[in-house]
Amino acid sequence: MNNPTNLTANETIGQRCWAIAEGYIPNWKKGSVSKLQSRETISLLNTTDTDAEVHIMIYFNDREPVGPYNVHVPARRMRTLSFDDLINPQPIPFDTMFSSVIESNVPIVVQHVRLDPAQTAKALLGRINR
Amino acid sequence: MNNPTNLTANETIGQRCWAIAEGYIPNWKKGSVSKLQSRETISLLNTTDTDAEVHIMIYFNDREPVGPYNVHVPARRMRTLSFDDLINPQPIPFDTMFSSVIESNVPIVVQHVRLDPAQTAKALLGRINR
Amino acid sequence: MNNPTNLTANETIGQRCWAIAEGYIPNWKKGSVSKLQSRETISLLNTTDTDAEVHIMIYFNDREPVGPYNVHVPARRMRTLSFDDLINPQPIPFDTMFSSVIESNVPIVVQHVRLDPAQTAKALLGRINR
Amino acid sequence: MNNPTNLTANETIGQRCWAIAEGYIPNWKKGSVSKLQSRETISLLNTTDTDAEVHIMIYFNDREPVGPYNVHVPARRMRTLSFDDLINPQPIPFDTMFSSVIESNVPIVVQHVRLDPAQTAKALLGRINR
Repeated sequence: MNNPTNLTANETIGQRCWAIAEGYIPNWKKGSVSKLQSRETISLLNTTDTDAEVHIMIYFNDREPVGPYNVHVPARRMRTLSFDDLINPQPIPFDTMFSSVIESNVPIVVQHVRLDPAQTAKALLGRINR
Repeated sequence: MNNPTNLTANETIGQRCWAIAEGYIPNWKKGSVSKLQSRETISLLNTTDTDAEVHIMIYFNDREPVGPYNVHVPARRMRTLSFDDLINPQPIPFDTMFSSVIESNVPIVVQHVRLDPAQTAKALLGRINR
Repeated sequence: MNNPTNLTANETIGQRCWAIAEGYIPNWKKGSVSKLQSRETISLLNTTDTDAEVHIMIYFNDREPVGPYNVHVPARRMRTLSFDDLINPQPIPFDTMFSSVIESNVPIVVQHVRLDPAQTAKALLGRINR
Repeated sequence: MNNPTNLTANETIGQRCWAIAEGYIPNWKKGSVSKLQSRETISLLNTTDTDAEVHIMIYFNDREPVGPYNVHVPARRMRTLSFDDLINPQPIPFDTMFSSVIESNVPIVVQHVRLDPAQTAKALLGRINR
């Protein structure tokens, strides 16, 4: 199946690099927040006809960046990731502020959503592009 | 009536293509969430003097994209849609993450709002442009 | 006082035209929501050394746009407006979806915030640029 | 360590100037809101190999801008600031709307998050670029 949009070949949806300045995974093991309830997620959309190989680098306050975490998003597919699931090369620590930079071989669209029920009415959404 | 803004002819408001990476319609039939309470909506603004013919493609995690869903936004009008209302060519499944790509023959402005009262304090808003 | 930023003369902060696709003022007269609690606001920032004359047009689902509503933001000042306060040429109706287009003679920065305590955890923010 | 991303030298992540139109620090001394609970924060990400010297100017409704507030973000680091912590040249007043302009010598990514538990379900996020 070809790309279902009407865009011409040189028009693409999204961009190859995205950055999210604020990320945070609460320590659900310690508190009353279950892992299911607490989600720090990103959704990745690949509208192209080429599989996207995505590399995520994580930046911290007090140490060198860690990564890349490699994610595969097939052609014409979307994928939702939890930062909790990024464990290779190493898990992202709990209770630590971090930023992420997301790079792809093809243009993708990235959306970041954080849900943290430990605080009432905490609903944060970030979308920061390069 | 002519376009009420002061923009010259080659200045337009919005763009012809928008993408929203994260979409989700909870299964309100199963739970305590009524259809009215649970809204996954997009607002479309057409400030031009030409009617907008809008085509929406829906992307999934595990299957080919579905669409186009056709939406009409008259000249100098706005319109708010619920993803629940997109039923032709086929309804968007519940409890499934999806992305959407919104294309128009004229520049429009698109804003995405999700309300999901099933989770306390879940308020998500996404706006991702091409 | 001159512009306190380090930007050179041809670098400006913001843009002359902004659009917000989704706006809504709940009918606080009818319900349990007080006017103070329910806010559909925009903040306007003018970092330039020239007063900003801002014109706001309101777009609807089923009628011609209304406006302009004229707003003054002095040089090097910010201002927060409630859509409830836009009454000339006519008040924006309650319980009606609307969009807004905000134009200024000098570049400004616009941020839109809606608070609607009638629904638990309804926190919407829109930022849509031209 | 060199920049871990694959970007070439002339590709940078972020921009040198950011603006946030709406800021507000509630008066936690007067009310039931503790300082820890009430956060008006910005996260700053510096992916470059050069330390970022960041200057923040604060704009008000009724007085001249104040600043610069100087913030240091080392190379390849992120940092989260609370507006409460900006005290030099002078603390930002409580219960006052303000805007901020954030300038850096190198491109950075800025994300703004406000949490105000004094109002149910108040969760605001702004990201406004130049």
